[in-house]
Amino acid sequence: MEIAELGEFGLIRHLTENIEIKNRETVKGVGDDCAVMDYGGERVVLMTTDLLLEGVHFDLQYVPLKHLGYKAAMVNLSDIYAMNGRPRQMTVSLGVSKRFSVEDLEEIYAGLRLACDSCQCDIVGGDTSASMTGLTISITVIGDAARDKVVYRSGAKENDIICVTGDLGAAYMGLQLLEREKGIYYEQSRELQQKIAEAKESGDSQKLSTLNAQLSTIATPDFTGREYLLERQLKPEARKDIIEALAAAGIVPTAMMDISDGLSSELMHICKQSNVGCRVYEERIPLDYQTAAAAEEMNLNVTTCAMNGGEDYELLFTLPLSQNDAIQAVPGVKTIGYITRAEAGQWLVCRDGTEMELKAQGWNPLKNS
Amino acid sequence: MEIAELGEFGLIRHLTENIEIKNRETVKGVGDDCAVMDYGGERVVLMTTDLLLEGVHFDLQYVPLKHLGYKAAMVNLSDIYAMNGRPRQMTVSLGVSKRFSVEDLEEIYAGLRLACDSCQCDIVGGDTSASMTGLTISITVIGDAARDKVVYRSGAKENDIICVTGDLGAAYMGLQLLEREKGIYYEQSRELQQKIAEAKESGDSQKLSTLNAQLSTIATPDFTGREYLLERQLKPEARKDIIEALAAAGIVPTAMMDISDGLSSELMHICKQSNVGCRVYEERIPLDYQTAAAAEEMNLNVTTCAMNGGEDYELLFTLPLSQNDAIQAVPGVKTIGYITRAEAGQWLVCRDGTEMELKAQGWNPLKNS
Repeated sequence: MEIAELGEFGLIRHLTENIEIKNRETVKGVGDDCAVMDYGGERVVLMTTDLLLEGVHFDLQYVPLKHLGYKAAMVNLSDIYAMNGRPRQMTVSLGVSKRFSVEDLEEIYAGLRLACDSCQCDIVGGDTSASMTGLTISITVIGDAARDKVVYRSGAKENDIICVTGDLGAAYMGLQLLEREKGIYYEQSRELQQKIAEAKESGDSQKLSTLNAQLSTIATPDFTGREYLLERQLKPEARKDIIEALAAAGIVPTAMMDISDGLSSELMHICKQSNVGCRVYEERIPLDYQTAAAAEEMNLNVTTCAMNGGEDYELLFTLPLSQNDAIQAVPGVKTIGYITRAEAGQWLVCRDGTEMELKAQGWNPLKNS
Repeated sequence: MEIAELGEFGLIRHLTENIEIKNRETVKGVGDDCAVMDYGGERVVLMTTDLLLEGVHFDLQYVPLKHLGYKAAMVNLSDIYAMNGRPRQMTVSLGVSKRFSVEDLEEIYAGLRLACDSCQCDIVGGDTSASMTGLTISITVIGDAARDKVVYRSGAKENDIICVTGDLGAAYMGLQLLEREKGIYYEQSRELQQKIAEAKESGDSQKLSTLNAQLSTIATPDFTGREYLLERQLKPEARKDIIEALAAAGIVPTAMMDISDGLSSELMHICKQSNVGCRVYEERIPLDYQTAAAAEEMNLNVTTCAMNGGEDYELLFTLPLSQNDAIQAVPGVKTIGYITRAEAGQWLVCRDGTEMELKAQGWNPLKNS
C-alpha cells in the first residue's frame, strides 16, 4: 500500500493502533499536541517531537539558517503551550551534509538559543551526525503543566465558544511570496545564463560583463509592505504570552491545540476528539491587512488561506460560554464561533450566509513525497 | 571551519558551551548518556535521543527493516539503562521517501514494538513525514530513576574497579562480515551483468538464461558459524537484565555508561568526566569465540576490535573495591581493571606486559561525511 493513501494522520493511527500502555506513568500517548506523563510531582510532564527535513519542510534557498533554528524550536515550544504547559528542556539532533560548515551550525544554534531564551527552555542534549544528503533537524521538547490544568483536544463541550489568537493566513501568504520570488529568480537567472553562454561562445566580452552585472542584481526581490508576511513565515512565535494571560485571568480552556496545519484541519481534530460539531463564522476570522492585500494581488481567496494555510502557530481553544466576558479582557483573542452537538456537523458560515462543510485541506507532507 | 575538524563530541561541546540552565527542573544537561530532570516526584526523569540516517548509520542492503526498528529503539533504551534508569516512554519520528510502502513502515514498527515490549516502554507519539531521499529515524526515550541511584559518567573514584558486561567486538566483526559479503556480492553481480549484456548483444539466449540463473543465486552468502556476530550487529540488546541484577544485589555503580563507540572511547569519557585515570588489562577483556575466530580469519587484531569496534551496547561501570565480592555474584560481568589518579593516565596493559595509552578511535560519524 502506498503511504500517500493513508495520509499523515491515518498513517500514524495505523502504525500506533493497539499499542498497549504498560507504564502507569503514561497518562496520554499518541493523539494530542503532546504526550502526557505523571512522574508523581505536583505537575505532569509533557513531551513533543518534530522532524524537519530539507526540501520537505524548509527550503534553504530563502530560509536563513538562524531563522530555521528559531522556527524549528518554536514549532515544538508551541506544542507545549498548546497543552497549557510551560517548556523546560529541549534536545536537538542535527544531520548535516558536507556542504555545511561549523559556522552554519552556529547560525542554527543561534536561532535555537534565541527561541529557547524567549521561552525559558534549556537545551539539554542531542547529537550531530553526518548526512548523505541535506539537512535534518529533529527536536524534542519536555515541559510541565499543573495536574488539573492540562488541556487536551478532547474536552470541548456543546455551547462552548471557539477562540483563536492573533491572525491567520499570513504565514501561508509569506510562503507564497517567497515561492513566487524564487520562481522569478530562477527564470531570470536561467535566461541570463543562457545569454551569457552565447556571449562566451561569440567572444563578446563587453556583452558578457553587462550580463554578469545583471545576474548579480536579480537576487534582491522587493518585499516592501510585505514584511509581516515574511516574518510570520520565517519567524513564527509560540503564544507564550497568551498562555500566561489566560493563567493570570484564571481561564482554563476546555480544549486547545496550536494551528500548524490550518484552522479547518485543527477544528476537525477538536471536533473529532471531543465528539462535537462546530459553527465558525467567516466574518469573525482574524486577518491582517497585509494578508488580505497579498491574497487579492495573487488572486487567492483570503478565507481559504486563513482556513487551510497552516504554519500560523496561533492557538485555537474552546471555553464555556460563562467565560465569554473574561476572555474579552484578554488582548489578542477573538471568538469565531461555537461548539454544537456532533450530529450538527462542522460548518463555516460565510459572509453571504451560505454554509460550507469544513474539510481538512491542510498541508499533507506525505502526499507529494 | 569544516565540521570534521572538531569531530562529533568537539562539535556538540562547541555548539552547546555557555548554555545557561534556566529551569530548576534541569539537573543535568549535555554530556552524559541522558539528560536528568527533577519534576518533584520520588524519581528523577531521564531523556535521551538519537538520529539515525540511511547511508550513514545503517545500510538497507543488509539490514532488514524490522531489525532496524529494533536496533533504533534498543540504542536509545540502552542510554536509559546506562544511567541506572528504567525506560518509560518513547517518541518515534520517521522520514520516508517514496520507495517505502506502508508495509515497510509496519516492519519498522514491528521491530520498535518488540524492543519496547521487552523493555516495558510505551510508544507515546511521533510523526511521519515524506523525505526527499532516504530513511530517517529519530527516537527519543524518557525514563526514570530513583533520585539517589542515578549513575553519571563523572562519579568514578581512585581505586574503583572497572567492570564490563557481556563480551566486546562482536558487533564490529558482524559489520565487517556483512560489508565483506556485500562487496563480494557487488563484484560478482557486476561481472555477471557485464556478461549478460554481452550475451544480449550477441543474441545468445541459452547463455543468457544460464547467466541469469547464476545471478539469482549469488545473493545468499553462508554465515554458518557466524550467527552470533550478525545478531550482535543487527539485533543488539540493551542490558536491562544487568540493571535489574545490580538492583537486586543492592549495587549502585559510581560511574556508568553504555559502550556504543568502543571501550577505549568510553573509558576516556569516564576518566575525563570523573577526572581520574585507568588501567585495564588486555587479558581481562571479554571476547566471544566467534569474534576471535572471525578476527583471525580477516587478519584483524581482536583486541583492537574489542577496544575500538563499538555498537556492543554493553555496560561499562566502576565500583568501590569493597563491592568486588558482591559483583562476582552477578553473572555476565567481568572486572577488567581499576581507576587511578588522573596524572597516572589511561592505559591498556597488554598480554606481554607492554602498556599502550588509550586512544579514542571509535567510529566518528562526522569524519567521512
